[in-house]
Amino acid sequence: MDKTAFWNDLAAQFSIDSIRATTAAGSGHPTTSMSASHLAAVLFAGHFRYDASDPKSPGNDRFVLSKGHGSPLLYAVFKAMSLISDEELLSLRKMGSPLEGHPAPLESMPWIDVATGSLGQGLPIALGMALGQRLAGSPGRVWVLLGDSETAEGSVWEAMQSASHHNVSNLVAILDMNRLGQSGPTMLQWEGATYADRARAFGWNVIEVDGHDVTQIDEAYRKAGNASGPTFIVARTIKGKGFSEIENKEGWHGKALDAEQAKNAIAELGGERSLTITPLPPQEFRPSNGSRPVEPPVYTEAVATRKAYGETLAALAARSDVVVLDGEVGNSTHTEDFARVAPDRFLQMFIAEQNMIGAAIGLQVIGKTPFAATFGAFISRAYDFVRMGAVSRAKIALCGSHAGVSIGEDGPSQMALEDLAMMRAVHGSTVLYPSDGNSTSQLVTQMADLPGISYIRTTREKTDFLYGAGEQFPIGGSKTLRSSPDDKLTLVGAGVTVFECLKAADQLAAEAIAARVIDAYSVKPIDGDTLDKALAYTGVMLVVEDHWAEGGLGDAVLSALAEGGSQIRGRVFKLAVTQMPGSGKPDELRDWAGISAAKIVARAKQALGVST
Amino acid sequence: MDKTAFWNDLAAQFSIDSIRATTAAGSGHPTTSMSASHLAAVLFAGHFRYDASDPKSPGNDRFVLSKGHGSPLLYAVFKAMSLISDEELLSLRKMGSPLEGHPAPLESMPWIDVATGSLGQGLPIALGMALGQRLAGSPGRVWVLLGDSETAEGSVWEAMQSASHHNVSNLVAILDMNRLGQSGPTMLQWEGATYADRARAFGWNVIEVDGHDVTQIDEAYRKAGNASGPTFIVARTIKGKGFSEIENKEGWHGKALDAEQAKNAIAELGGERSLTITPLPPQEFRPSNGSRPVEPPVYTEAVATRKAYGETLAALAARSDVVVLDGEVGNSTHTEDFARVAPDRFLQMFIAEQNMIGAAIGLQVIGKTPFAATFGAFISRAYDFVRMGAVSRAKIALCGSHAGVSIGEDGPSQMALEDLAMMRAVHGSTVLYPSDGNSTSQLVTQMADLPGISYIRTTREKTDFLYGAGEQFPIGGSKTLRSSPDDKLTLVGAGVTVFECLKAADQLAAEAIAARVIDAYSVKPIDGDTLDKALAYTGVMLVVEDHWAEGGLGDAVLSALAEGGSQIRGRVFKLAVTQMPGSGKPDELRDWAGISAAKIVARAKQALGVST
Repeated sequence: MDKTAFWNDLAAQFSIDSIRATTAAGSGHPTTSMSASHLAAVLFAGHFRYDASDPKSPGNDRFVLSKGHGSPLLYAVFKAMSLISDEELLSLRKMGSPLEGHPAPLESMPWIDVATGSLGQGLPIALGMALGQRLAGSPGRVWVLLGDSETAEGSVWEAMQSASHHNVSNLVAILDMNRLGQSGPTMLQWEGATYADRARAFGWNVIEVDGHDVTQIDEAYRKAGNASGPTFIVARTIKGKGFSEIENKEGWHGKALDAEQAKNAIAELGGERSLTITPLPPQEFRPSNGSRPVEPPVYTEAVATRKAYGETLAALAARSDVVVLDGEVGNSTHTEDFARVAPDRFLQMFIAEQNMIGAAIGLQVIGKTPFAATFGAFISRAYDFVRMGAVSRAKIALCGSHAGVSIGEDGPSQMALEDLAMMRAVHGSTVLYPSDGNSTSQLVTQMADLPGISYIRTTREKTDFLYGAGEQFPIGGSKTLRSSPDDKLTLVGAGVTVFECLKAADQLAAEAIAARVIDAYSVKPIDGDTLDKALAYTGVMLVVEDHWAEGGLGDAVLSALAEGGSQIRGRVFKLAVTQMPGSGKPDELRDWAGISAAKIVARAKQALGVST
Repeated sequence: MDKTAFWNDLAAQFSIDSIRATTAAGSGHPTTSMSASHLAAVLFAGHFRYDASDPKSPGNDRFVLSKGHGSPLLYAVFKAMSLISDEELLSLRKMGSPLEGHPAPLESMPWIDVATGSLGQGLPIALGMALGQRLAGSPGRVWVLLGDSETAEGSVWEAMQSASHHNVSNLVAILDMNRLGQSGPTMLQWEGATYADRARAFGWNVIEVDGHDVTQIDEAYRKAGNASGPTFIVARTIKGKGFSEIENKEGWHGKALDAEQAKNAIAELGGERSLTITPLPPQEFRPSNGSRPVEPPVYTEAVATRKAYGETLAALAARSDVVVLDGEVGNSTHTEDFARVAPDRFLQMFIAEQNMIGAAIGLQVIGKTPFAATFGAFISRAYDFVRMGAVSRAKIALCGSHAGVSIGEDGPSQMALEDLAMMRAVHGSTVLYPSDGNSTSQLVTQMADLPGISYIRTTREKTDFLYGAGEQFPIGGSKTLRSSPDDKLTLVGAGVTVFECLKAADQLAAEAIAARVIDAYSVKPIDGDTLDKALAYTGVMLVVEDHWAEGGLGDAVLSALAEGGSQIRGRVFKLAVTQMPGSGKPDELRDWAGISAAKIVARAKQALGVST
């Protein structure tokens, strides 16, 4: 059989298997799989370089199905590659099956690198993979299949401009322009020339093809392989291609064929077949590893934790896997300290937080250890990427600087006041909020090896020297900074409020009221045991946070105290920001918000029934 | 004085006042104000149609300072318009001053429509304003000043494509291309032709000007006024223009001049002056109002709450202020029911959630009542816009459909499991989660008049008929569905888990264990009194939610029970999703997650020490 006949035959098999799997499931997206069958057939049978027995090898090509609802197509490819059986194919969308409705990188699905299904995320992730391959010296390429609907997502254009800015030549985006979205036609329908103009204006090589003509597709993939800079292939396709009853028809987005329709479709597509393919082998290369021992900084005086963060990153540059990304605020987050010592592993992502975090997810696929930083307030810009990062089982370290009203004069648009709530509600996340230089240094160093999504909140202002160099800060731990048998109440702070709690304890001590003080630097997991014992002993606890009252440290403490249905052994007061702040000096704003030492003292005395 | 001389003089005054205010504050962004002084001078003295005594009039032109850090320029304009005194100008960034570091629409700043400072949000908001003006039949235009750094944000390109798709002719974007970002040069620096190509490819009219040449600027504004479709003006400018010591220099982004530098700069700019301007009057027009009484739907049988949401929106179409936006999933969220009855007030925003919510914020500025909907999981895509909406004191109603593992086969990428945490942590928000048709109908109707950001979570599956037509659902209330003097525990649910709690109560009753059941349909504010009394009476409470354990209903309940430092009067168990789900049937997944009736019964008996 000649190549083109084989590719067409394989494409028909992909469409048929997509139909069979979704009809067996009783739900799913056959038509969007059918529009891309020819694109997939030529790619996997003719161009993709991949060792399926070593799917994590940095030398492999990578494929990202950005239009994740086209998962049946991907599983059909896996079947043709003999990675899954026909029986497994037909387990699609069933409880316990690794063939989820949208692709997810489960242990039993090692050929999937990242989860997709939230549209517009595949290209930023693919860009990260391409950057990772380049850093690793890998000859591999990244192929990403985009839906046309998802080009409405701004994150796609963040990645478009970033890819050309970073001049990645090993990135190929394939646009499956099938004209129809979920609820109706897309904005541009079949205006391929407009997509092409946009991609060109964003600095990409552009090739337009008929997405069902395997010869044109083959030629396009060949050209893409030889291009300088990223390549965007606009493929005009037909949704539901191959089954005339539903081709190019509305109302067929997320809908399986019934048994009769499936039978007819399979017949029209030429009947079931069982072709197999073996991708081309990856080109050989020898990954380099030049890591040196890490010597985290040690502090002996006051420093801003954001500065300690940057200096610890600079120390971590000794590890060749560490890569740092920033949203064009490196002089604020202090990632500039890393950029200075390892400019080749510092990626300037400009003010495009979604693309930054997407790229971080892509980089860790290639074995890198990415740290990404911006203002804490702006991590919210990429929350969907963080959420999906957890579904991707990704290991990334995030930093949000400029936390809370304590940033001062810049005002509420720049104040992270919901970041702890947001990051706690990410599956498997770790949330850290150090108060001083040495705790920051220790925690950032540990983040390089933490699984899942980790987040550290740093402070704009300089904070006092608190912990000596030898102090350890285990994840899930806390520090009891003041404690005596006479303790009448417990003050719990984290980050900047630790200092307010300490000052308050001093002032209370002057009035003969002993207060225990706990630094809850690990907000998730939190040290429930220490908190529970402190509350049981003192009977009253004030949790003080520079954050909204919802979902932050206060809620974390209450939740830990109630863990497993435990009776909470005392009264807990949440001191948090409850009104919309304006501009002002940090200490003025903390006092206004009711989280200053003075306000803590007043609330403490009120709680104890001591007249003020 | 001829016009051009006056404009140049006025621009110098704007720069000088920006310097004076930031130097007095000791912080802020004078250089980015200086780059746009000429652009502002020609706009406000020559083209902007505005009645400052009636700033909310829908006939007014609108101005959005998307580059919010250029606030000193805006305040300088206000001073020239005699809206604030020189003394007020010099209160910039001080505690209590309405002249915040970034613009915010405080009561004492009625000339500011929305908060800016999170970059890339101004254009989506401006698009919403332009759409609102068009819907209102207003002759007004929207002018938005963009920084060049912020064009890295994908949300800008979401708005670009949406504006041309919606063919708004009353929208003018002015790009202040001053070459320098916060930490260094922008991606495109002074490549004006590339910006122009991109804007043209996205369907805009484009004009390139020297941003310090008032004649060119005047001509561009004139052309923009006569254009069909939106107009993008690329203005090449110099950061710090007018003070040679810092012009076009790095390291001067967020930095005030010291007293000596300020003196020199003011001298170089020709010295202080006190020109005043009065904008052109708005063109007259008569706003129409054709509202009819709203008759919310009444249900007598099972219905999916997402369907009830859509049908209630269709009823709300009787109010001419109601506008509905959707992220191209209207056949899932059921906003299609509104689109059918009021197609002119249904805005298809495609898969671009940031632009959708930004546009909603813009629409409410013009007096519209926007409802915006997509899958709950994808509201996370626009979290920064929601956060900033609160800073904007915006009144918008959001809906997230397809909540929790209960969506079933589509898998975790489509499951909202963090939306309650995310939305609770928005200042002043209301968070609702109805269980059945009539509660949905009532709550959605109330949302049209709720202040601030309101959010409703809807369910994919059909849920049982529960409440009769006469039942009232006040915000902050709850429904006690089962109650007896013998109650041994309390089950708290919301939305889909209400039915699991009811089934569990039935099964427990069969074993002679009476359970109180509470429907916490109002997650924020939550009915703390009812919860507290129920816990005090029964001693044991199980809170069951189809959401991560962090920040959702369980934390909301604990926080309410501990309100004001109250001792929590019993044991509280949180039943929530704690592992990453896959695909499956809704009931299979609820059972797997431990939130099914059977699992509630088991946990209840365990909590009560009853052998199972």
